[in-house]
Amino acid sequence: MILRRDEVGQRSETVRRANLSAIVRELHDRGPLSRSELVARTGLTRSAIRGLIGEFVAADLVSEERPTPLGAPGRPSPLVHLNAEGAVVIALEIAVDCLAVALVGLGGRVMALERVDRPRTHVSVDETVADLVELVARIRATRPPDDPLIGIGVAVAAVVRRSDGLVSMAPNLGWRDVPLGERLAEALGSDVPISVANEADLGALAEHRRGVAIGADDVLFLSGEVGVGGGVIVDGRPLSGVAGYAGEVGHMPVNPTGIACACGSTGCWETEVGVGALLRRAGHPPDGGRAEVDAILHEAITGSPAALGALDSVGRWLGFGLAGLVNVFNPSLVVLGGFFTRIHPFVARTLGEELERRALPAPRRLVQVVPATLGVDAPLLGAAELAFEPLLADPALWLGPRDGLAELASA
Amino acid sequence: MILRRDEVGQRSETVRRANLSAIVRELHDRGPLSRSELVARTGLTRSAIRGLIGEFVAADLVSEERPTPLGAPGRPSPLVHLNAEGAVVIALEIAVDCLAVALVGLGGRVMALERVDRPRTHVSVDETVADLVELVARIRATRPPDDPLIGIGVAVAAVVRRSDGLVSMAPNLGWRDVPLGERLAEALGSDVPISVANEADLGALAEHRRGVAIGADDVLFLSGEVGVGGGVIVDGRPLSGVAGYAGEVGHMPVNPTGIACACGSTGCWETEVGVGALLRRAGHPPDGGRAEVDAILHEAITGSPAALGALDSVGRWLGFGLAGLVNVFNPSLVVLGGFFTRIHPFVARTLGEELERRALPAPRRLVQVVPATLGVDAPLLGAAELAFEPLLADPALWLGPRDGLAELASA
Repeated sequence: MILRRDEVGQRSETVRRANLSAIVRELHDRGPLSRSELVARTGLTRSAIRGLIGEFVAADLVSEERPTPLGAPGRPSPLVHLNAEGAVVIALEIAVDCLAVALVGLGGRVMALERVDRPRTHVSVDETVADLVELVARIRATRPPDDPLIGIGVAVAAVVRRSDGLVSMAPNLGWRDVPLGERLAEALGSDVPISVANEADLGALAEHRRGVAIGADDVLFLSGEVGVGGGVIVDGRPLSGVAGYAGEVGHMPVNPTGIACACGSTGCWETEVGVGALLRRAGHPPDGGRAEVDAILHEAITGSPAALGALDSVGRWLGFGLAGLVNVFNPSLVVLGGFFTRIHPFVARTLGEELERRALPAPRRLVQVVPATLGVDAPLLGAAELAFEPLLADPALWLGPRDGLAELASA
Repeated sequence: MILRRDEVGQRSETVRRANLSAIVRELHDRGPLSRSELVARTGLTRSAIRGLIGEFVAADLVSEERPTPLGAPGRPSPLVHLNAEGAVVIALEIAVDCLAVALVGLGGRVMALERVDRPRTHVSVDETVADLVELVARIRATRPPDDPLIGIGVAVAAVVRRSDGLVSMAPNLGWRDVPLGERLAEALGSDVPISVANEADLGALAEHRRGVAIGADDVLFLSGEVGVGGGVIVDGRPLSGVAGYAGEVGHMPVNPTGIACACGSTGCWETEVGVGALLRRAGHPPDGGRAEVDAILHEAITGSPAALGALDSVGRWLGFGLAGLVNVFNPSLVVLGGFFTRIHPFVARTLGEELERRALPAPRRLVQVVPATLGVDAPLLGAAELAFEPLLADPALWLGPRDGLAELASA
């Protein structure tokens, strides 16, 4: 509310940019809206909406359609929608046992998506970057070459510094201090911005924007794979901590007599609930991937005591750690992502019992534990959202200048 | 930046109120400032500052002093300061083994403070309320009867609902669903607003505003007494969760084979690091209070292996739990409050070793663990801040109307 004196001259341009951002966010998050709905949602006047939409249409980011009147009186409000082809991003995901790539258009339309398993021995930075370059080339070949690419987002199973996307540590990949964005920019020969973030943080973003957590302001997203990560939404905003490292729930110590963790400590939560813990307890090779998990679920369905016991144990440890997080965060929603989505029906009972026993009654009554609706792709779709963020925050940069003076004043 | 159409008419009044709030917050948080410093800090013009300060002076909330010129050329900028007597609050604290009350003036000046130990058997709601009424009467008697009392803030060792201050659960007091604010209002016969909050949340607020955590945006404040609580500052704002129950770090399960906790679960962090855990391990009566803790510290100084061993053990468990919280929150500062402040020198080494072993290197490098500087009074001083909040947020309500039309427009 306080305008500094030197800002007054820039005010109208600042307002224009903020209003353009409000409109494109509404359309990106909610899909097509009538002009009347945009008026209601943004609080802008009808004539302001008309003018701003005109700017988007001129830049080919938005189209308007006048719906066929159905005999009702009055002029129907035109339906405004984003052109998915008007701005496209590449989303990448680096997990321990798989890689994924997607091309996503404005408004969140997934145009192409590919996920490939990879052996656990194939996780050096060089090999990973080379594999990703190949995947990107393959997926781009499915699309016209003139797709307007505006950014690349990368989800990685790692502790990532927010300021520059440095991969500080990825215990299960064995990486430390890798400038992943730079490496990828070089290898891809691309000059669009590359943003890197932790996969659980991006899973939380995607579920909050397009999944089961829409409208929830206090959310804990759990990403379970070989490693276990957390993405936390606090009061509607992502929890990042002082440098972006927050949410490493997989490395909460939970078992004082527990086994060694890839991070160097012992008894971390992920040693009790990660993929490896399930495989180990069910008597499967602990380095097995997706197929081994499927085998255990199949055995559980056929009543195998070893498989059922392993799932019960993972469920109990899930509840043990979640009880602490529910007491600490008082969330309305816990979203189980990654392989937790798949095992959810098998662990829900023991998880619930442990939560009942160990979470304080007040926060426990307010929390729901649900599987992720975007499934295993949540972090990948979150990476796409990350890559769209600059356009959503300041779409004016993608539009023609309104007039030279205004641009000058805001420079 | 988007002004709804129906807000435009109210804009100048809204701006005035926001600017009044900005000024009173600066003076309340930082102490006396010159007009020039207020111009620099708020971005308002010199003439706007002059007008707004005039309103505060007319309401007796602010005074201005022209410093004696020291032979320097130019007119010195008048020093603006809040009148502590212009608005006064009562702060109350309800801990398991003591009660405290303070009278605090605008700007945070503590005018009177009293803390009394009480036996652990004397903690029913009725007795507590009666004891507080007596304490309030005693402390008010030390002041002129016409102190302008504007609010009462209460810090309580309990899980508190934010919306109405309901004490949902206080395991170590044995309370459940107590409408504490209502009970106190009735017993005190007071009609000023009474706000109730968790003592660790208020300790965090006080240390963030006036203690060791000034300027830090990501802070974990640990309150250790019989129970253990946490107050978390995330990105400069208090973490509350969906209903205000967040921060109950004392009830994180940390020991799968641990002992029973007052909350009904087992192996909660407070069973390993609370006052009771230290007394138990040192072979003292586990229900002892402050004096027993002092006795253990004295024994430790004289080299008693039992006392040193008990402190080492509490330090290790402190580090065990803190490692998880550092990984989850990536704070820049962990503030040890309550009895942790007093035992800090005795547990710092083992706590640090455990943190080194169990926290991820990236967040660990960025965090400092320090004792609270406001000591045992942090929650009480935070309760005063809570009671001042309505005035700080909208001081216009305590000032005369500027003109009838503006008041009408903002009604």
